[in-house]
Amino acid sequence: MTTLAATLSVADPAARDRLLDAIRFDARGLVPCIAQQHDSGEVLMLAWMNRDAVAETLETGRVCYFSRSRGGLWRKGETSGQVQRLVDLRLDCDGDALLALVDQAGVACHTGRRSCFYLAPRDGTLAEIAAPLVSAEALYGR
Amino acid sequence: MTTLAATLSVADPAARDRLLDAIRFDARGLVPCIAQQHDSGEVLMLAWMNRDAVAETLETGRVCYFSRSRGGLWRKGETSGQVQRLVDLRLDCDGDALLALVDQAGVACHTGRRSCFYLAPRDGTLAEIAAPLVSAEALYGR
Repeated sequence: MTTLAATLSVADPAARDRLLDAIRFDARGLVPCIAQQHDSGEVLMLAWMNRDAVAETLETGRVCYFSRSRGGLWRKGETSGQVQRLVDLRLDCDGDALLALVDQAGVACHTGRRSCFYLAPRDGTLAEIAAPLVSAEALYGR
Repeated sequence: MTTLAATLSVADPAARDRLLDAIRFDARGLVPCIAQQHDSGEVLMLAWMNRDAVAETLETGRVCYFSRSRGGLWRKGETSGQVQRLVDLRLDCDGDALLALVDQAGVACHTGRRSCFYLAPRDGTLAEIAAPLVSAEALYGR
């Protein structure tokens, strides 16, 4: 089986460093990353990565973010099992935003919804336009 | 013709304020906004909005960002003509990211490409995986 790192040719540390060096991390050392389901096009979430998170994501092929609240690497799905397999990674024109094309196992949102973007203005209020597919209990055992 | 503000029911200033109050702007007063072509699902760009930019976007139905480099409102397409008509606006689960479903006229990227996310790791380097559709001269007259 061909690994993702081989496909993207980032198994070579020097090649990986060239990619990492092209990213303009902000003053906190972070870059926003959009996760999009690779086949349906659904935008699942927006989270943040630091250099280590991008490097680990490229190495393992499983998406790893940086949790601003916990102040450490956040291996998506580590607790819930709802992992994101990396299909491709894109950098934008000025290097300060990432787009990860992923294959999302189950749901992306901690509320049990497929996408985190489930709130929209409707009839003068902010409505939930998608329902949870699984419960928090099922995701986190509590 | 039904206006967008009527569809989203944000013509009412109180309703608009409720929506704006639900957004968790960062310490700079900004929130990241993903622009996605509403029908194809293509992720076009990521930019930033302040409260005034969100309010104007909802009022006019044309997407307005906040330019961090210029320090002011950035009415997308004002110079280039490549406007984004707002189709829907989504807020994420923790209120600190926006997803704008838009109808993009022409191209989103200042390089003349449809999407800003045209750089990807290929064969050990960062490759351009999309070509410009229009020239900078055609977009900006220079």
